[in-house]
Amino acid sequence: MEVEILVIGNEILIGKTQDTNSNWLAKRIAKYGHRLKRITAIEDDIEIISTTLQTILERKPNIIITTGGLGPTFDDMTLAGVAKSLNRELELNQHAYKSIEKAYEHAYKRGILKLEGMTKEREKMSYLPQGSIPLPNIRGTAPGVKLTEGDAIIFILPGVPSEMKAIFQNVVKPILKEKRGKFVEKGLFFMGIGESQIAPYVTKTENKYPQLWIKTHPRIGLSLEVELSITGFNLENGEELAEKALDEMKEVIVSLNGKIRERK
Amino acid sequence: MEVEILVIGNEILIGKTQDTNSNWLAKRIAKYGHRLKRITAIEDDIEIISTTLQTILERKPNIIITTGGLGPTFDDMTLAGVAKSLNRELELNQHAYKSIEKAYEHAYKRGILKLEGMTKEREKMSYLPQGSIPLPNIRGTAPGVKLTEGDAIIFILPGVPSEMKAIFQNVVKPILKEKRGKFVEKGLFFMGIGESQIAPYVTKTENKYPQLWIKTHPRIGLSLEVELSITGFNLENGEELAEKALDEMKEVIVSLNGKIRERK
Repeated sequence: MEVEILVIGNEILIGKTQDTNSNWLAKRIAKYGHRLKRITAIEDDIEIISTTLQTILERKPNIIITTGGLGPTFDDMTLAGVAKSLNRELELNQHAYKSIEKAYEHAYKRGILKLEGMTKEREKMSYLPQGSIPLPNIRGTAPGVKLTEGDAIIFILPGVPSEMKAIFQNVVKPILKEKRGKFVEKGLFFMGIGESQIAPYVTKTENKYPQLWIKTHPRIGLSLEVELSITGFNLENGEELAEKALDEMKEVIVSLNGKIRERK
Repeated sequence: MEVEILVIGNEILIGKTQDTNSNWLAKRIAKYGHRLKRITAIEDDIEIISTTLQTILERKPNIIITTGGLGPTFDDMTLAGVAKSLNRELELNQHAYKSIEKAYEHAYKRGILKLEGMTKEREKMSYLPQGSIPLPNIRGTAPGVKLTEGDAIIFILPGVPSEMKAIFQNVVKPILKEKRGKFVEKGLFFMGIGESQIAPYVTKTENKYPQLWIKTHPRIGLSLEVELSITGFNLENGEELAEKALDEMKEVIVSLNGKIRERK
């Protein structure tokens, strides 16, 4: 499956918050053999959310995951932006309402929050685009949302990492696992020879194994240490192929007097 | 000025590498009063680089910063993708060639690299889109590139953070400073009351100071600690306004029996 991530939040764009969610999600999407095609980070703005989601849908990914902008405040606009994008109304979802009410009741009883009962701002989080399935948020209050539009499934997740992760584990991961593809990733570090010296051999090996993607990443300027990584998606004998390609690259590195450090 | 960042690299999309460059850049763009409108991360693919850059140019940002994909290997495709996007040829740039040659000579003499002289792969990095100004890379080999297209300035920077930062400091920062805008950011942390309890007051204060952007960020699920941040771009009396709004929010928090923790 092809996946896109849409990150919504001014705090990312002014550099106040490092977006760690996308990397966390990216690892898991790859692990289950799916391809993350693009990550887009945009402002809290209904118009921008709406048009950006439309553009993503035009690229026909199977899954879209949005993070952020689900809270109770005025500038949490993700649901309104998604609704506009899909040309659907926001409507009160009773399941969402009850789970939010319950979360606040619980927090009030435990003394975490001082304001009892539902307010306009708390209610706001239960207005979901038509056709939404609310996804319980056991770590917070704003529920996530699952929607379908054409052949795409859209997961709308909170921006707070602990909340995002909990909903992902419960709801998104099972779907990624069910439609699981194969992802293989092997690699090593080498020193003593640079990226440019090994580049022709990378090309040669890649031509020999066109199904694999062989890449070098210099870890420090001027290539004091370089990581070689070999990855492949959905190959029948991916493990074996990647292992063979890695062995061949090892021979090359040794023959050029490079030093190898195995990855753990 | 409006800015967009385009991150190029499969390693970001499979979660192998956390993109820390965008956050580093975002902070600096905001600091000099410019607005980062969007961050887009895509694969190493000429076609995708080309079409994505075209779409970014259609949004008419003043500055576009790309990171990644400048190295000597086959799958470093940023320059080819940009050239295609702008409908320009790649041509050997003598300045770039000489600086790359010199960097390798230096590395060879210091014993860091074992292969002397230029090779096809090393030369590749000196083929720049027509009209490019190469930006010396003192921390590595692949030079950055400055280009203009219409009213937009495009900076093409390496993905290795130390190299990206060095070129940014030398070349991009002076331009951000020269066209400096005003950015103000104030805030605090509060506990004991939740995001939803303070939400109506945030809206009220935002209505009173429509030039400011007032946002709360729960730091842990269920709002055990919430950050309040007040930001504004290019306001004549931004400092003063933000200070006033912050004081009013402090009064609200105290009146609701919330506890305030000042930010350093």
